[in-house]
Amino acid sequence: METNIPFPEPLAPRFSGLATDLYQLTMAAAYHAHGRNDRASFELFVRKLPPERAYFVVAGLQQALEYLHTLSFNAEEIAYLRSLPVFANVAPEFWDYLREFRFTGDIWAMPEGTLAFGNEPLLRVTAPLIEAQLVETFLLTTLNFQTLIASKAARMVAAAQGRSIIEFGARRCHSFGAALYAARAAFIGGCAGTSNVEAGHLFNIPVYGTAAHSFTMSYEREIDAFRAYHEVFPETTTLLLDTYDTLNAARMATEFGAKLRGVRLDSGDLVAFSKQVRAIFDEAGMQHVKIMASNDLNEFKITELLAAGAPIDLFGIGTELSTSRDMPALGGVYKLVELERNGHTEPKMKLSREKATYPYRKQVWRQ
Amino acid sequence: METNIPFPEPLAPRFSGLATDLYQLTMAAAYHAHGRNDRASFELFVRKLPPERAYFVVAGLQQALEYLHTLSFNAEEIAYLRSLPVFANVAPEFWDYLREFRFTGDIWAMPEGTLAFGNEPLLRVTAPLIEAQLVETFLLTTLNFQTLIASKAARMVAAAQGRSIIEFGARRCHSFGAALYAARAAFIGGCAGTSNVEAGHLFNIPVYGTAAHSFTMSYEREIDAFRAYHEVFPETTTLLLDTYDTLNAARMATEFGAKLRGVRLDSGDLVAFSKQVRAIFDEAGMQHVKIMASNDLNEFKITELLAAGAPIDLFGIGTELSTSRDMPALGGVYKLVELERNGHTEPKMKLSREKATYPYRKQVWRQ
Repeated sequence: METNIPFPEPLAPRFSGLATDLYQLTMAAAYHAHGRNDRASFELFVRKLPPERAYFVVAGLQQALEYLHTLSFNAEEIAYLRSLPVFANVAPEFWDYLREFRFTGDIWAMPEGTLAFGNEPLLRVTAPLIEAQLVETFLLTTLNFQTLIASKAARMVAAAQGRSIIEFGARRCHSFGAALYAARAAFIGGCAGTSNVEAGHLFNIPVYGTAAHSFTMSYEREIDAFRAYHEVFPETTTLLLDTYDTLNAARMATEFGAKLRGVRLDSGDLVAFSKQVRAIFDEAGMQHVKIMASNDLNEFKITELLAAGAPIDLFGIGTELSTSRDMPALGGVYKLVELERNGHTEPKMKLSREKATYPYRKQVWRQ
Repeated sequence: METNIPFPEPLAPRFSGLATDLYQLTMAAAYHAHGRNDRASFELFVRKLPPERAYFVVAGLQQALEYLHTLSFNAEEIAYLRSLPVFANVAPEFWDYLREFRFTGDIWAMPEGTLAFGNEPLLRVTAPLIEAQLVETFLLTTLNFQTLIASKAARMVAAAQGRSIIEFGARRCHSFGAALYAARAAFIGGCAGTSNVEAGHLFNIPVYGTAAHSFTMSYEREIDAFRAYHEVFPETTTLLLDTYDTLNAARMATEFGAKLRGVRLDSGDLVAFSKQVRAIFDEAGMQHVKIMASNDLNEFKITELLAAGAPIDLFGIGTELSTSRDMPALGGVYKLVELERNGHTEPKMKLSREKATYPYRKQVWRQ
């Protein structure tokens, strides 16, 4: 489950210090006013595995590190903060501190692609208290989301039993930025590629695509659409069959012979259609044509399709993968576990009933 | 439900043409090769309302327009596309076309904040076919997500019966970019503000914050933490009460008297605790202290809390709002409805059983 993605340069030349929750900045101001900036250790972990998940696949570390590496506050951002009434009583020295702010702490973390379980720290920050606190929101956002999607992808990859899964979910993602990171996390989780061209470009992930119903509909006759597409992509055509009549379209597609790479089914009874379409191509001597299925698939439906003997060669998965629809949020938390004071390390723990935490830094052992 | 947000400049100086699904670009190449670029109309709509939703609140139009306004392909992006094996047979003229590409079409759309229902076009694009097709993915991503969150926010605002709701969900959002747009959409849906400082800065949304458990834990005694915070924020302190013992903390908080603005409860039985905490402050003559509740709340829990008489004044809502946890994806689609050919407008419709579409452009009438 380990992976090696050749990572690009950071996506942003600089991450803004405003990319956080306000209370991180009010706490920072309070710590600063009281000269409290001793080294602290925070751990980022998920208390327990969500339902239907047996493990996590860690992802997002690269973006977390890019953030820590470039984090700063520019003059305009500091002016915005000073304009907020909540900071009316904060001393000018705090703004001087933010102007010079750089993250100087240390990070321990699981490599991306690592399997992890509940209550295991995915990442630990040891840094001056203010720095360690300020970065909480962004670190949680980044690791929570990418780990969520990588873990969901791994489930689908396992269900597909060796068949390829392509991430197709950009249009249902939570902003196009989310789509980029979903594609990346899905690849770390074992997907073969993505439909997202910018993700392919930025993260060096294989990109895949077929055609849309609108392409077929834009031609007067379906066969004209198929021919027009095949003429431009003679070696790589995957025809979409279900705009009007799936089986009729499959029979038309047999005219493309040896050069047709695949067909896609995006509606209807995928078990019945895939078997009938397979039979049409096999009878035409086109055993090489791959059948791709899409249409709100997930790991449970993949399992059912394969159990029913559907001759599907690859799956295009959108919403269920790219938003982790059955569990769209990972509840990772970031908790203070140690604090130095006067050169002495103190353990820290919270006692509230549902949210107690364990004190001291922890090490996750991997063989 | 209409709103007026003073919008900032576009977040990106230029949106990349690669921010799309690969098949939009393969279809574009096929259309280009065959000289097919007559004007087409596509409509963006959601087929039906999701469960537990009685309406949509439209959001995301501003970002959709920023995208259309700045969309282009630079030389490096075109070089990347040309490096993909799928484009091996595409004529050089297509790359010339992309180099000069600008969106020249027309847009009709519902204003942000409008209520909408199933099968109503939220946005219509009329443009040369290639342009109209290329922009599909980004438009869907943007309107699907922001409309989803604005609609969820409106439900929570209704449930709160006049009490304020603050969006607190950045750490559970699908990337920090998603967190920005979730904050914006939540504000359009009626929330009073966000914890997300960058969203406050970019979109001119009020920002709110309290303090975290780690702040309390970083002091040897809880009362020292409360005093340290109050000293820096004497006019605006909201103390977090549930790090160790909620009622004990409430009694300690009475020492801050008239200047204490509020307290936050983030765990435990919110009905019982809010009543007990209210009684402690009322007995101390501190009727002005507001009680904020957080901890995985949603519109159903808000309704229950208020029905049980919980004296909660405002709600901080994270995951359930910012990821729309019970329905984390809006299945908006973008369908070809008209195509001009030789100066003649042809209706377009798809006939596949579950996914049939209505032909011709539609107008949604609002009084």
